[in-house]
Amino acid sequence: MHLSEITHPNQLHGLSIRQLQQIARQIREKHLQTVAATGGHLGPGLGVVELTLGLYQTLDLDRDKVIWDVGHQAYPHKLLTGRYSDFHTLRQKDGVAGYLKRCENKFDHFGAGHASTSISAALGMALARDLKGEKFKAVAVIGDGALTGGMALEAINHAGHLPKTNLLVVLNDNEMSISPNVGAIPRYLNKMRLSPPMQFIKDNLEEQFKHIPFVGESLSPELERIKEGMKRLAVPKVGAVFEELGFTYMGPVDGHNLEELIATFQQAHQIIGPVLVHVVTTKGKGYELAEKDQVGYHAQTPFNLTTGKAIPSSKPKPPAYAKVFSHTLVKLAEQNPKIVGITAAMATGTGLDKLQAKLPNQYIDVGIAEQHAVTLAAGLACEGMRPVAAIYSTFLQRAFDQIIHDVCIQNLPVFFCLDRAGIVGADGPTHQGMYDIAYLRCIPNMVVMAPKDEAELQRMVVTGINHTSSPISMRFPRGNGHGVPLMEEGWEPLEIGKGEILRQGDDVLIVGYGTMVYPSMQAAEILSEHGIEATVINARFVKPLDTELILPLAQQIGRVVTLEEGCLMGGFGSAVAEALMDADVLVPVKRIGVPDILVDHATPDESYAALGLTSRQIAETVLQAFFKKQAAAVV
Amino acid sequence: MHLSEITHPNQLHGLSIRQLQQIARQIREKHLQTVAATGGHLGPGLGVVELTLGLYQTLDLDRDKVIWDVGHQAYPHKLLTGRYSDFHTLRQKDGVAGYLKRCENKFDHFGAGHASTSISAALGMALARDLKGEKFKAVAVIGDGALTGGMALEAINHAGHLPKTNLLVVLNDNEMSISPNVGAIPRYLNKMRLSPPMQFIKDNLEEQFKHIPFVGESLSPELERIKEGMKRLAVPKVGAVFEELGFTYMGPVDGHNLEELIATFQQAHQIIGPVLVHVVTTKGKGYELAEKDQVGYHAQTPFNLTTGKAIPSSKPKPPAYAKVFSHTLVKLAEQNPKIVGITAAMATGTGLDKLQAKLPNQYIDVGIAEQHAVTLAAGLACEGMRPVAAIYSTFLQRAFDQIIHDVCIQNLPVFFCLDRAGIVGADGPTHQGMYDIAYLRCIPNMVVMAPKDEAELQRMVVTGINHTSSPISMRFPRGNGHGVPLMEEGWEPLEIGKGEILRQGDDVLIVGYGTMVYPSMQAAEILSEHGIEATVINARFVKPLDTELILPLAQQIGRVVTLEEGCLMGGFGSAVAEALMDADVLVPVKRIGVPDILVDHATPDESYAALGLTSRQIAETVLQAFFKKQAAAVV
Repeated sequence: MHLSEITHPNQLHGLSIRQLQQIARQIREKHLQTVAATGGHLGPGLGVVELTLGLYQTLDLDRDKVIWDVGHQAYPHKLLTGRYSDFHTLRQKDGVAGYLKRCENKFDHFGAGHASTSISAALGMALARDLKGEKFKAVAVIGDGALTGGMALEAINHAGHLPKTNLLVVLNDNEMSISPNVGAIPRYLNKMRLSPPMQFIKDNLEEQFKHIPFVGESLSPELERIKEGMKRLAVPKVGAVFEELGFTYMGPVDGHNLEELIATFQQAHQIIGPVLVHVVTTKGKGYELAEKDQVGYHAQTPFNLTTGKAIPSSKPKPPAYAKVFSHTLVKLAEQNPKIVGITAAMATGTGLDKLQAKLPNQYIDVGIAEQHAVTLAAGLACEGMRPVAAIYSTFLQRAFDQIIHDVCIQNLPVFFCLDRAGIVGADGPTHQGMYDIAYLRCIPNMVVMAPKDEAELQRMVVTGINHTSSPISMRFPRGNGHGVPLMEEGWEPLEIGKGEILRQGDDVLIVGYGTMVYPSMQAAEILSEHGIEATVINARFVKPLDTELILPLAQQIGRVVTLEEGCLMGGFGSAVAEALMDADVLVPVKRIGVPDILVDHATPDESYAALGLTSRQIAETVLQAFFKKQAAAVV
Repeated sequence: MHLSEITHPNQLHGLSIRQLQQIARQIREKHLQTVAATGGHLGPGLGVVELTLGLYQTLDLDRDKVIWDVGHQAYPHKLLTGRYSDFHTLRQKDGVAGYLKRCENKFDHFGAGHASTSISAALGMALARDLKGEKFKAVAVIGDGALTGGMALEAINHAGHLPKTNLLVVLNDNEMSISPNVGAIPRYLNKMRLSPPMQFIKDNLEEQFKHIPFVGESLSPELERIKEGMKRLAVPKVGAVFEELGFTYMGPVDGHNLEELIATFQQAHQIIGPVLVHVVTTKGKGYELAEKDQVGYHAQTPFNLTTGKAIPSSKPKPPAYAKVFSHTLVKLAEQNPKIVGITAAMATGTGLDKLQAKLPNQYIDVGIAEQHAVTLAAGLACEGMRPVAAIYSTFLQRAFDQIIHDVCIQNLPVFFCLDRAGIVGADGPTHQGMYDIAYLRCIPNMVVMAPKDEAELQRMVVTGINHTSSPISMRFPRGNGHGVPLMEEGWEPLEIGKGEILRQGDDVLIVGYGTMVYPSMQAAEILSEHGIEATVINARFVKPLDTELILPLAQQIGRVVTLEEGCLMGGFGSAVAEALMDADVLVPVKRIGVPDILVDHATPDESYAALGLTSRQIAETVLQAFFKKQAAAVV
C-alpha cells in the first residue's frame, strides 16, 4: 500500500512493521518535498512520523480522538487523514492549513496553533465521554516545550487527580521548543532520556533480589518497606514526578522504533486513569540537515532539498522589522546594562538570539511561559531594570491578566514589544495579531504605539526604553520594512502621545496607525489623481491619542478616515471615534481595518486584498464613503 | 514590647520565642477584632502569624524582600510594617487596603490580589539583584492553592533551572484555597504532610542499615546502587517532585512552631539556589470557629466575635445576583444532563457549590486554573455538552487567549458567566471587573450580554444554555438584585441581539447596559422633573448590538447617552459610537462609564459617587451635555 491510498487512518490496522516503515518513508518524502516547495514546519513533523503511525495503529480513529498540541507537528497526521492529494496546497490560500482546524477535517478534533492546550482539551472530551457513558480513547500529544506552559501543568494537576478518567498523554520529547528548551521540567525529562529503559532495570533488579540473603517470606514490616523501596529504586527515578502527580508513567520509549512504540501504546491503553507515555524523538528525523540544525529547520521558507538552502526571493528585500528591532535593542543594551530582553521560547523569531549572543546576561528565555515572562518583567522593573518583553501579539494574549494585574495596576515601566502584529500570512487565524490594540488600550497607565516604518521603529525602541513613568507597548508587523535609511545610533526618542502630519489637503483627513500609514499616503496619492486632496496623519500613538492634532483637523476638514491593521471592534478607529464624540466633533468617520471575522491563512497580500486594505481599495472606499460623484466617475 | 510599638519589622530581631508568641497573640487579637468590625479575610491571615514572625526574625527587611502571594494572607505583615494604628480602617475608603499595594507601604514590594504571581515577581527581583551585584534575599510566600495556578508552575520551572540564583519559596500549605484544594499537586503535598518529619526517618533508616547483613565495604556497583536507593527510600519521597525540579526542599515544618520555623528559615538562607520550605499551617488558627469552618471563615462580612455570626444588615436585601444565577443554573441542569458547571476554585463565590451539592457529576472544580478551565470547557463543548464557565470578570482575564484561541476561533458553544463584573467595592483595583466588555467584544463569534436585573439574569441563563451556534457570555455584578419577582421555572429565552425600550421621550436617548439600566431609568425620571423626556433602552447585548433599535431612535431624537459599569475605552459606549459612525448617524453621544483610571477600594456606593455613576449625577451630566439652559436653572 502506498501512502497516497490511505484516506482513513484505520487503513493502518494490520500493516506489518515493515509496511509501516515504508509508509513512514513515504510520509517523510512527501513532507520534505511539500515543505521545500511551500515553506512550513519541517522538523516537528519529521520527528513524529513513527509516533503517529504507531499510535494510530493501536487506535480506532472512527471513535478515538487524538488532540495534537500546537499542530505544527501534525503534518504526518494530515497525510494519513485524507489530505495527501491536497497536501501540495499547504499553507496556500484555500489550501491545507499549516495548523489544525476542526472545520478542515473530521480527524482534527481540536484546533491548535498556540502551545500547551491539548491536555485540557483532551481531558474535557474524556470527562464528556464518561458523563455520556460513551467509550473512546482521548489522547493528547504534547511536546516537552509545550509542557512548560502553565496551562498544560494546570491540566496535569487536574487530570492527575482523576484516577478513573482514562486519558493518554503522549509526551513527544525532542529536547526542543523552537530553540533548545529552558527550565527544570525539560532538564528533568532529559535526565530520564539518559536513563536506561525501564523494563531492563526492573528485570535486572529482580535478578539481584534473588541473591540477597534477607529476601524471604517473613520480613519485619520495616524490612518489607525497604524491599518495596528497593523494587522502586531504579524504576521510580524515571517518571517519579509524573507518578507523584497521579499519572502512570511509561517510558522513555524510542520514538523511532515502531515495535517499541506499538507495544507501549497497547499497554498504555489497558491502564485505568491518566497515563503518560514518554516518547523520545529526534526533531527533523530522516533529513540530515534538519537533524543537525534543529533550530534552523524548525520552520522553513521554500528551500532546495539537496542543499537545504532557502530559495532566494527574486529581488532583495529591505530588512525585516524584527531584525531592525533586535539590532537596535542590542545597540542600546550595550550602552545600558539595565536593559534586559525577555522572550518566551521565541529567541530566533523575536531576534533576541542576537542579544543572547552579544549580552547573555541581559537576555532571559523563560520557555513557553508568557504569563511568567510578564510578571518576571514586572519584578525586574521593581528593581529599576529596563525589562523589554518581546512577545508576538498573539502570544501576549496569554499574559493579559499579568499585564493588567502585575504591570499596569502597579504602573511598572515594562516595555512590551509586540512582533507579528496584524496580518501574519500563512500561519492563519491562530497567529493573526488582531486584538492587541483593543486589549491594550483599555488598560489604564499603558502607552500604546506603533511605528510607520523601520526607521520610526528604531526611534520607538529608544522611546520605550526611555519611558520610565508607566508601562509602554509597541506593535510592529511580521515581514520587511520599507527600505528607508536607518541610523546606527543616536536615535531621537519621540514625544509620547504626539503624531505627525505627513501630507496636507482640505478634502479628507486620513489618520493612519502603524503599518497603515504608508498605505494611507499611497491612497492619498490615488485620491489626488481624482482631484481629492487628503491630509494624512501618522498617529504613532493610540494611547495617549494626539487629540490636539487630530480634533481641530477633523473639525476643519469635516471627513475622517481611520486606518489600522487590527480589529475594528474597540481598535484604533474606535479610539478616534471616541475622541471625536467626547469633543463633540460631529463629522463622518470611515473606519477601515479588520472587520469582526477570523482571517484565514493566505499570503499577506492576499489577505490585505480580501480585507480591502490595499492602497487602491482604501482610496475606493474613501471615494464611496465621501465622494460618491467622483467614485461614479471612476467606475 | 507590644505589637503597637512595632513600626519596623526589624524590631522583631532579638525577641525571644516567648516574646514572639506574645506578639503572635496580639496580632491574632487585632486581626480578629478588626475583621469582625470591618469584614475582610479572616482565615488566611490567622494561619500565617507564626510563619510571618519566624520569617521576619530571620530577615533584614531593610534589604530583604518578601513577596506575599494574593495578599489576603498579609494582614499580619501589615500589622508588623507600620500599619497597626491605621488597621481599623481596613478595606474602608482611603484606609488600609485588603490586599497589597506598592504605593501603600515600602514593605509591600509587589502588589497582589490575584493568585500565583509571587514566584515570578520574586524571581524577577532576584535576577535584577544578581545583575546589579546587590545582596538581598528574595522570598515568595505562596499558598498550596495558588501553586496550582499555571504561572506559578511556569515560575518553578524557570527558577529550578537557575542553580545559582538564590530564591526562597515559602509554601504556606493549609490544604485549602477558598474551598478545599483540587488536583494532584495538593494531593501530593497532603501526602507529605502526613509523612513523619524527614530527619526521624533518616535516623531510623541508618539504624536499620546496621542490622542488614549485606551492608559492608566491598559491595558490587549494583549493590552499592541499591544501598543508595535504600537510603533515599523514605527520605526522597518527601519533596522529591520539588527536588527533581531543581529546588532544595525543606519540610514539612509545623507552621505554628516558632522554633522550628526559625531554625528552618535560618538553614534555608544558607543554601545556594532555589529553596522551597514547606510550611504546614492551619487556616483560621487561634479562632476555633474559623479552624472548624475554614470555608465559611475564609473571608467575612462584619461579625460577632463571640458567636461568629455575621451581623445582619439593617434591612432585608433582595437575593444576590450570584445566588439567582446558581439557583437558575441548578434548576436547568436538573433537566439537562449536558449542562456542566465549571469553576476555578470559586465554588462558594460563584454559587456553584449548590450545583456540586445537587448534581456533583455536572460540576467541575479545576483549582486556581482559569486557563485550563476555559480550554476544558472547549473540550466539553466539542462533545456536545453545555459547559458553563463561571468565572469572575477579573479572573477571566487569565484565560483571554484560551477564549480567543480555543473557544472563539473554533466557534465552540461555551457559556461564560462573569460574576463580579463592574465595581466590586472593598477588594479594590485588582478585583474590579472593568475590562470584560472591551476584551470580549473584540473577539469574533462571541455574543456579549448583561441583564438589567435578576429576573432578566434568569432569562439570560436560559438564553446562554440554549445558544449553541457560538460562544456566549453574560456579565453580572457583585451584590444584590433589585427585588423583582423571580420565576421558579419556565424562563423564556431572549432573542440574541435584541434590546428593549423601557421608556419613551423625545429629548434624549439613554442606552443603558446591564447594571446601568436601572440608573438610566432613575436618571430619566430626574430629567423628567426638569422637563426633559428621555427614551430609555435596555441594550441587553453589546454584541450583536441592536442597531435596528438604537440607530433610528438616535437619528430621530438627536442626542445619545450611553451608560455602562465598565471601562469607557473600547467598552459599550464605544460600540454604540462605532455603530453610529458606521451608519453615518451624526448625533452627539455622551458616554458615561468608568474613565481610564484604576478604581480604589471603597464601598460600591462610594465608588459610584466618585465616578459620577449615581442616578442624580447621570442626570446632571446629561443636563450639562445637552441641556445647558435647564442645567443652569438647576444650579
